[in-house]
Amino acid sequence: TNSYRIAVIAGDGIGTEVMPEGLRALQAASEAFGFELDTTEFDWSSANYYSRHGQMLPDDWFDTLRTFDAIFFGAVGWPDVVPDHVSLWGSLLQFRRHFDQYVNLRPVKLLAGVPSPLAGRAPGDIDFLVVRENTEGEYSSVGGIMFEGTERETVIQETVMTRTGVDRVLRYAFELAQSREAKHLTSATKSNGIAITMPYWDGRVAAMAADYPDVRVDKFHIDILTANFVMHPDWFDVVVASNLFGDILSDLGPACTGTIGVAPSANINPDRRFPSLFEPVHGSAPDIAGRGIANPVGQIWCGAMMLDHLGEHAAAAAVQDAFEAVLARGDSSVVTPDVGGSGTTQTLGQAIAAAI
Amino acid sequence: TNSYRIAVIAGDGIGTEVMPEGLRALQAASEAFGFELDTTEFDWSSANYYSRHGQMLPDDWFDTLRTFDAIFFGAVGWPDVVPDHVSLWGSLLQFRRHFDQYVNLRPVKLLAGVPSPLAGRAPGDIDFLVVRENTEGEYSSVGGIMFEGTERETVIQETVMTRTGVDRVLRYAFELAQSREAKHLTSATKSNGIAITMPYWDGRVAAMAADYPDVRVDKFHIDILTANFVMHPDWFDVVVASNLFGDILSDLGPACTGTIGVAPSANINPDRRFPSLFEPVHGSAPDIAGRGIANPVGQIWCGAMMLDHLGEHAAAAAVQDAFEAVLARGDSSVVTPDVGGSGTTQTLGQAIAAAI
Ligand SMILES: CC(C)[C@H](C(=O)O)[C@@H](O)C(=O)O
Ligand SMILES: CC(C)[C@H](C(=O)O)[C@@H](O)C(=O)O
Repeated sequence: TNSYRIAVIAGDGIGTEVMPEGLRALQAASEAFGFELDTTEFDWSSANYYSRHGQMLPDDWFDTLRTFDAIFFGAVGWPDVVPDHVSLWGSLLQFRRHFDQYVNLRPVKLLAGVPSPLAGRAPGDIDFLVVRENTEGEYSSVGGIMFEGTERETVIQETVMTRTGVDRVLRYAFELAQSREAKHLTSATKSNGIAITMPYWDGRVAAMAADYPDVRVDKFHIDILTANFVMHPDWFDVVVASNLFGDILSDLGPACTGTIGVAPSANINPDRRFPSLFEPVHGSAPDIAGRGIANPVGQIWCGAMMLDHLGEHAAAAAVQDAFEAVLARGDSSVVTPDVGGSGTTQTLGQAIAAAI
Repeated sequence: TNSYRIAVIAGDGIGTEVMPEGLRALQAASEAFGFELDTTEFDWSSANYYSRHGQMLPDDWFDTLRTFDAIFFGAVGWPDVVPDHVSLWGSLLQFRRHFDQYVNLRPVKLLAGVPSPLAGRAPGDIDFLVVRENTEGEYSSVGGIMFEGTERETVIQETVMTRTGVDRVLRYAFELAQSREAKHLTSATKSNGIAITMPYWDGRVAAMAADYPDVRVDKFHIDILTANFVMHPDWFDVVVASNLFGDILSDLGPACTGTIGVAPSANINPDRRFPSLFEPVHGSAPDIAGRGIANPVGQIWCGAMMLDHLGEHAAAAAVQDAFEAVLARGDSSVVTPDVGGSGTTQTLGQAIAAAI
């Protein structure tokens, strides 16, 4: 029987609440489909680890994690203990970079049983994928401050795009679009205003489009693109975006499908030299943490994406079918408040595990 | 009688179609309220001016425009003739910078008669102001390319924030929030990911908040903020944002109110050393240009904001009342297709002028 070594990092806040349900679903899938999951938990959180050690990760984190088949991640960040930019640059963003997880794949799908805030939209109307560049671009650590503490204070941060970095994520997005029925790729840009990096991005998109004559390519500036997510979410199939624009679109998209609580993301190292990382789009959510009402579907959907990545396609499909069916059933004593129920993280997680 | 010198730049595409209706409304207001508008039109467009001169503006544009009381602007950009980053950096973005229009004020209001794409939202539910920093930040012209044409190609663009630039727009936003009933200011950030400039922005917001104890201040990262525009548009009163984030939020907000065709913006030089510039949020819209169906309300609303800025408050209110009433009446043979009618730019513009 196949066996997979999974590093589990629940993190902070609702990360610690949804993770048990994510693991419960994976456990059910492993029993039903006859593979083994060998999980190791790491308590690398702001609230516990940082408080005790003054850093988010032990010095040997890279060697510790690199031999795992995948990383199953909850959420990190607890601003009362440590500012977000310290906690995130101290963990999640390090993983993305050092494990070269250059694709962040984020499905946006309106599910039956989840009411959309958009008028007149039904399941089937919204079903697309955001492919986000995940290692460079606007998320750079280059820059600094000059004349600090004076009236002349000037702060600079550099956006850095490389041909390697841009082309590989575009290649992934073009391949993905080509594999789908609609064969439609939308590029997020802002070349009219951000006039150095974004025209470069546009140029690489145009150059690569020549290799994929069967893919229909369009582009929108990020401002009108966000507007179109609301006005015309049915226009999209695969949307490729820089690190920051992908970050924005992959929160806005799920909001249009009713709740970011169900949205998953896969931080993928496509060449498989390093483990990929699977984390829900929602964060640690200090506002609802501790109440046991966080929606576990984001974490469970991440589990499905992880199984797919590991090659357990049938199990992945079963997990996906299970949470879609439980949400569609919409038993209000089972589903969580964000989708209109009075259930808890546990009741929803248990119902999904039972359905697997 | 008061008289104002107005520079009129219709620009490209639907800019040339909505401008006559904007002027028609202003003309009606000047007759009704007894002031004079002395308008001078400048044909500084991509399609005409750039095609003939290879640049967007004549060399003496600054001295030509600086003595006007205001600039009434349509839209610029015609990608078939000149790439957007060349046309925009060759005109609009120069005006903002050289005339130090450091506040871009953009109302977001759900109007009666304009159906919202958001389920269950009625006029009154969405009514807030975006205050966008308008001269620095992510819209910088600093950066470049290295190893051009090789596999090692690297492109860098710098975001530049200064204490002067950040503090003055925050000050404007705090004052504005304080003057309103809700006294609520929301700051757009992304300090968890954009970890040099955005923590600086957050720090300046926190420092200034001490001067305005009666203003309730909160902040959201831009990703979840866009999600909240869709899920909870009623949460907002005054939203202050950097140049790029403000650009995004001021397209997304109007989309949530049904159409960006009605959204106005005021590029303001608050110290009045230079003329302020009033332009609709929509662009030149090549996709619908030439068909006479563009909604002129964005341009007309800009006219109202311009009158307010010039001190003609009663006239400004009358223009605002007029377009709100005509839209609310919703005569489908009068209003434009974007708000569900079969009227034209002209029928809608004429009806509004008549109502003034
Ligand atoms: C045309 C473009 C450069 C401009 C901007 O990004 O500022 C526009 O989108 C706006 O919002 O006025
Ligand atoms: C927590 C934050 C740094 C992160 C990001 O901006 O990438 C998050 O928003 C995400 O989308 O995974």
